[in-house]
Amino acid sequence: MEQQPLALGIDIGGTNTAFGIVDRRGQILAKGSMPTKGYSSAALYVKALAKEVTPLIKKVKREHITGIGVGAPNGNYYTGEIVNAANLEWYGTIPIANMLSDAFGLPVRITNDANAAAIGEMQYGVAKGMKDFIMITLGTGVGSGIVANGQLVYGHDGFAGEVGHMIAVRDGRECGCGRMGCLEKYCSAPGVAYTAEKWLDVRTDKSLLRDFKGKITSKTVYDVALTGDKLALDVFDYTGMLLGQTLADVAAITSPQAIVFFGGLANAGDLLLKPVKKYLENNLLHIYKGKIEILQSALPDTDAAILGASALVW
Amino acid sequence: MEQQPLALGIDIGGTNTAFGIVDRRGQILAKGSMPTKGYSSAALYVKALAKEVTPLIKKVKREHITGIGVGAPNGNYYTGEIVNAANLEWYGTIPIANMLSDAFGLPVRITNDANAAAIGEMQYGVAKGMKDFIMITLGTGVGSGIVANGQLVYGHDGFAGEVGHMIAVRDGRECGCGRMGCLEKYCSAPGVAYTAEKWLDVRTDKSLLRDFKGKITSKTVYDVALTGDKLALDVFDYTGMLLGQTLADVAAITSPQAIVFFGGLANAGDLLLKPVKKYLENNLLHIYKGKIEILQSALPDTDAAILGASALVW
Repeated sequence: MEQQPLALGIDIGGTNTAFGIVDRRGQILAKGSMPTKGYSSAALYVKALAKEVTPLIKKVKREHITGIGVGAPNGNYYTGEIVNAANLEWYGTIPIANMLSDAFGLPVRITNDANAAAIGEMQYGVAKGMKDFIMITLGTGVGSGIVANGQLVYGHDGFAGEVGHMIAVRDGRECGCGRMGCLEKYCSAPGVAYTAEKWLDVRTDKSLLRDFKGKITSKTVYDVALTGDKLALDVFDYTGMLLGQTLADVAAITSPQAIVFFGGLANAGDLLLKPVKKYLENNLLHIYKGKIEILQSALPDTDAAILGASALVW
Repeated sequence: MEQQPLALGIDIGGTNTAFGIVDRRGQILAKGSMPTKGYSSAALYVKALAKEVTPLIKKVKREHITGIGVGAPNGNYYTGEIVNAANLEWYGTIPIANMLSDAFGLPVRITNDANAAAIGEMQYGVAKGMKDFIMITLGTGVGSGIVANGQLVYGHDGFAGEVGHMIAVRDGRECGCGRMGCLEKYCSAPGVAYTAEKWLDVRTDKSLLRDFKGKITSKTVYDVALTGDKLALDVFDYTGMLLGQTLADVAAITSPQAIVFFGGLANAGDLLLKPVKKYLENNLLHIYKGKIEILQSALPDTDAAILGASALVW
C-alpha cells in the first residue's frame, strides 16, 4: 500500500507547545509536547522544538511530510509572522514561518490558534461539511475563527476574527487592548472568575463561592454551579447573555449555520451553552431565529489544536 | 469587431424599477425605468416589466445577452426568491427569478440591493480590485454587503449582511423588526430625521431646524447643517458615532480594507463620513487602526444599482 502524504501540526500555546504528525483523514500518527516558556529568544525556542520534533519525523519517514502547519497566538496567515502576542515571552514581530521553514526545510503555513481550531472542526470535527460557521474559543481569552463560503475569513491584513474584542458592554470593564467593555473581559475564564468575585461584593445572598473569595477561578464557579448554587448559576447566565447578545450581532453579518465552542471554559457544556442559546435566540433578527446550531467541539483539547494546525497544509 | 456578451441588470426598488443592458466593462448601452408600485400582483408587474424591457433587448440583439441579474429588497441568492420585503406591495415569498426566467427565456441571478451595490463597487467602482470590504447603503434603511476573500458573503441561508440590524444602542429605539436599538433606527434617513425632531424637544439652543419642526427630513438636516447650525451638525456627529462604533465591531470580524458608503444619506459626504471616520478610528482595536479606508461610492445613484445587478451575471 502506498504511503499517503502527512503533515506536521504545531500548536504554540502560551504555556505549552503541542505537535503531531497527521494524515489526511486526521489520524495522529505520532505526537509530543514541550514548554513554550523559558526560552530567551524565539531562535532558541525553534532550535529546541526542532530537537523534539526530529525523532517523530524520522519515525514516519521524512519524505512523506508535505508541510508544516502552525497555530499560534496572533499568527498571521499572510505574513507568516507572530505579531505582539501578549501571552508569549518574545514580544514584537517574530517571522516564525521562515524560522521553522529554515529549521525543517519544509513549507510552513501559519494562522492564529482560533483559526486553526476552526479549520480542525471543518476538516475533522462537528463542523465537517459546513460552509458557514463561527468558531469561538473560550479560555484565557476569547478567540474566534470565521468561516464563510467554505473559506476562513482572514481579512485584508490577516487579522480578521477578533470577536473577543467586540464591545459587549459599552463603557464596561477595562480591557488589556486599551478599550472598554470587550467581550473577552466578561466571557473568558478570567472574566467569569472576575464576575463571581465582583458579585460577591455587591450581592448579599448565601453562596458556596464565598468560601473561595479572593481565589475564585472559572473552574471554581463551574464546580459550585454543579451543586445548584444560585450565584454561580447566575454567573453562567450572565456570561451566556453577553455571548448570546454579541453573537446575535455576529450572526447578522455572516449568517452562520452553527457556532462551535471550544476551549477550557466551553467544557462547562450546558451550564454555559444553554444560556448562550437562550440569549442568542432572544436577540436574533427574526430571519435567523431557530436556524443556528450551538455546538460544542467534540475533538479532544490538545488534539484539536494539532489537527487544526496540520490541516493548514492541505 | 465581434460583439461582446451583455447582461440585463434590473434594480427593483420600493418606488421605481431601473433596468439597463450592460457590457462587461460596465458600460450601459441602453436603460429605462418604470414604477414598481401599482401592480396588484407580482405576475402583473413582471408582465409590465417585460413589455418595457423588450424594446431595449431588441435594440442590442437578443443573442448577445447572457443572462439577467436582479437586485431586490430581501432578494435571496440561493432560492431566487424575494421574501417578505417590507417596502414592496406583494408580501410573502415571490419566486421572482423563476418568473423573470420564464418571461425572458434567460438565466436569472438575484440578490438583495445592498449586495448588488457591493458587487457593482467591486466590478466598476471604488472597491475595484479589493478582496475584503464592506458596503453600507444609507437610505430608507441601512443595508450592507460583506465581501471577504473576493467573494460576497451570503451566509448559509442567503441572508447574511444585515449590519442595519446590529444593536447600536442596547434597549434603544423600537425597530420594525420587533427588537430594540437597531442601527437602522438611528442611521437611516428617517433615523436622522427622528434624531433631529427628538432633540428639538429636549434641547433649548437655537437652531434653524426649529422652523421645520414636525416635517424634518434628512435632507432638511443636511441643508441646515451646511449653514453651520450646531444642532444639525450634532445630529450628523451622533449618527456618525453610532455608525463608527458599530462598524468598529464589524471590522473586528472581517478586517476589511475599506468601508464604502452609498445611497441618499451617504450623499451628505464629509458631513457624515468625517464623524464616521473619527469614531471608527477611536473605537477600533489597535491592530486595525489607520488601516481602513472610508470611501463614498463614485457611481451615479441609479446606474450603480443597474451595474451591480448586471454584474451578478458574470
